[in-house]
Amino acid sequence: MTDGGDQPTTSYEFLAATLANHAAFVHVGDRADDDLRYLTRFDGPDRQYAFVAVPGGDGPQTTLCAPSLFGDQARREFPGDRVETATTGRPAGERAAAVLDDVGVGGGGNTTVAVPSQIPHDAVAYLQRAGHEVTATDAVERARREKTAAEIERHRRVQRAAAVGMARAETVLAESAVDGDRLVWDGAPLTTERLRRTVNAVLAGAGVDPVGNSVIGAGRTAADLHYTGDDTIRPGETVLLDLSPRGPAGYYADLTRTFVVDGGGWDRRAYVACEAAREAALAELAAGAGAAAATVHEEAAAELAAHGFRIDSSEVGFTHGTGHGVGLSLHERPSLTGDATLAAGDVVTVEPGVYEPSEGGVRLEDLVVVRPEGYELLQPYPFGSTPRRRDLDG
Amino acid sequence: MTDGGDQPTTSYEFLAATLANHAAFVHVGDRADDDLRYLTRFDGPDRQYAFVAVPGGDGPQTTLCAPSLFGDQARREFPGDRVETATTGRPAGERAAAVLDDVGVGGGGNTTVAVPSQIPHDAVAYLQRAGHEVTATDAVERARREKTAAEIERHRRVQRAAAVGMARAETVLAESAVDGDRLVWDGAPLTTERLRRTVNAVLAGAGVDPVGNSVIGAGRTAADLHYTGDDTIRPGETVLLDLSPRGPAGYYADLTRTFVVDGGGWDRRAYVACEAAREAALAELAAGAGAAAATVHEEAAAELAAHGFRIDSSEVGFTHGTGHGVGLSLHERPSLTGDATLAAGDVVTVEPGVYEPSEGGVRLEDLVVVRPEGYELLQPYPFGSTPRRRDLDG
Repeated sequence: MTDGGDQPTTSYEFLAATLANHAAFVHVGDRADDDLRYLTRFDGPDRQYAFVAVPGGDGPQTTLCAPSLFGDQARREFPGDRVETATTGRPAGERAAAVLDDVGVGGGGNTTVAVPSQIPHDAVAYLQRAGHEVTATDAVERARREKTAAEIERHRRVQRAAAVGMARAETVLAESAVDGDRLVWDGAPLTTERLRRTVNAVLAGAGVDPVGNSVIGAGRTAADLHYTGDDTIRPGETVLLDLSPRGPAGYYADLTRTFVVDGGGWDRRAYVACEAAREAALAELAAGAGAAAATVHEEAAAELAAHGFRIDSSEVGFTHGTGHGVGLSLHERPSLTGDATLAAGDVVTVEPGVYEPSEGGVRLEDLVVVRPEGYELLQPYPFGSTPRRRDLDG
Repeated sequence: MTDGGDQPTTSYEFLAATLANHAAFVHVGDRADDDLRYLTRFDGPDRQYAFVAVPGGDGPQTTLCAPSLFGDQARREFPGDRVETATTGRPAGERAAAVLDDVGVGGGGNTTVAVPSQIPHDAVAYLQRAGHEVTATDAVERARREKTAAEIERHRRVQRAAAVGMARAETVLAESAVDGDRLVWDGAPLTTERLRRTVNAVLAGAGVDPVGNSVIGAGRTAADLHYTGDDTIRPGETVLLDLSPRGPAGYYADLTRTFVVDGGGWDRRAYVACEAAREAALAELAAGAGAAAATVHEEAAAELAAHGFRIDSSEVGFTHGTGHGVGLSLHERPSLTGDATLAAGDVVTVEPGVYEPSEGGVRLEDLVVVRPEGYELLQPYPFGSTPRRRDLDG
């Protein structure tokens, strides 16, 4: 980790309830598993390692079975009780079963071990072979919802880096000249890929990782929620930039703005509608903890409908939800379209958008933290569909 | 996909042998699962989707159960037979079971479905609930070994981008001045994090993603195989850069060089030894397909031992293997320390290195393709521990 400040840590108290009903909690995965990242705070390699928790007198007793050659790093990063390296080379599920055996959680057929539902099947097979029964728990997903101050600080920093990237993109668009039916910047036609590379270089230079998430579309492809192709950018077209870099401790940003050079038609009406929907969503979030997540979405949708956009299609109009939780995963709990009640520490996107495949798409997205009495916008970024030169200092 | 050229595709013929003994093959995962990326060529979202193959008259019949809102993208990217979107919203394992039911692979208790061992456990539970027995296969991992011409071309391009990043790093080091016990570049002390951000910006600007894999250590931390911290870079210290960006179609680069400003002690001896070990490894690879992978490692290790370095420790000397396969995963088959026989189309690293925690570390790593009669180095990069200004054009 490279940018100073408190490292987010994990309190294992949340596992106590699970361990009251189960002999142990086990998870296995590799560096791509965000539940395991939360449980271990270990930025591990691309092969399996294991986390084990058993009940103890002072709360859950936790072990990380570190991968071969990564013992020192695991000891630096793991906030739990013990890093085990004696059994490297054996499959992670087998290593977890050996830890249970060591601490006397025998596989007599009468022990149940709680695991996340997405644990690799081979790990479950090793636990079952050792005599354990396995039941799924969503305890980790639930615990990950409530962000600590250190986690929120990480979101703030990476969202700040995303804003610096957005400012660069907006500046490029502001500096672009109309040349017939295309934009030209710095002597060459501006394309979505050229703009993406320019933005990604700024993100990487700011110490965050684009991780393939810089979605930039223009015109028809602005209506594509995950566009990473290469198109000429034309005057009058909506240029939609959705930047979701990942910061050093693993937390994501999520920031979307939409610009038009020489706009004024469909895009103007769509932009005004999205701004109104954003205000409507934030007005619901102003209630803070205890608000029903779904009402945030419903108010945004009602506002878009009032502006004449469809909200009942997966192709045209408001085709997606108003927001989702963000953390060590880009998409996590809570969803603003589900039945969750918002809680203090939830970090969620607010992202109304409308799409018309023949015209383009407009989306405006920010990241907010739910507070007991309201919400906090993590990193303001200006609005306006006409791009301006911006100087947000990294 | 953004950089032109043939997109790598997947021929499903390799599943025919599995489907001769099983009623179906199923995999479930999200965008982080590289087996699923290979099976679908779909750059999907961070939630589960499913791939299903059943036997057919003309070979395996394949279905991708696409996630909600991603149907169009899935249809563009999936080279198989059918993209299914009717059941979005249901768990991916349940959707896979529904596909089997649709095509008449009933769950009468007599059908076995082959799955990769790391398939999420909940997907297996859905298949079992539908009456299927599940057995693990490594067919996908085996198929992924042999890279096609289009895949090798992707490796070549991303390795080229890594070389451009390395040239930038080497140039920064060459331009740095010694100021007492530290290096100064462009008016400020040079640190590992500053160098990392500079390199990552070049990688991102070249259209590839650093994905948190730019390992840069100096002195003691050059002996750390996964160092991403921030240290002042000092004269006389080994500066080790291991760059593994991921290219647009998902293929990885892997390139390591080591430099010293004002070196001449331990580092000189280590560098000479690694160069000799590299030559010894390549001499074995010159036999091409059919060579025993382990002999490549053994010859490199013998050379390092002949130069006086330990090869029997996990802390000092040559602490790791000589190489590993690279593809859609940064580490995949074959390992150069296992019992594999090299085959045409294997893409492997050659990366001898020696470490002395009190001194630093030296590693030299390149990417090669095994050919029927030898090997091909994918992207040459110059050697030499004294950094020079390099102008490798992106």
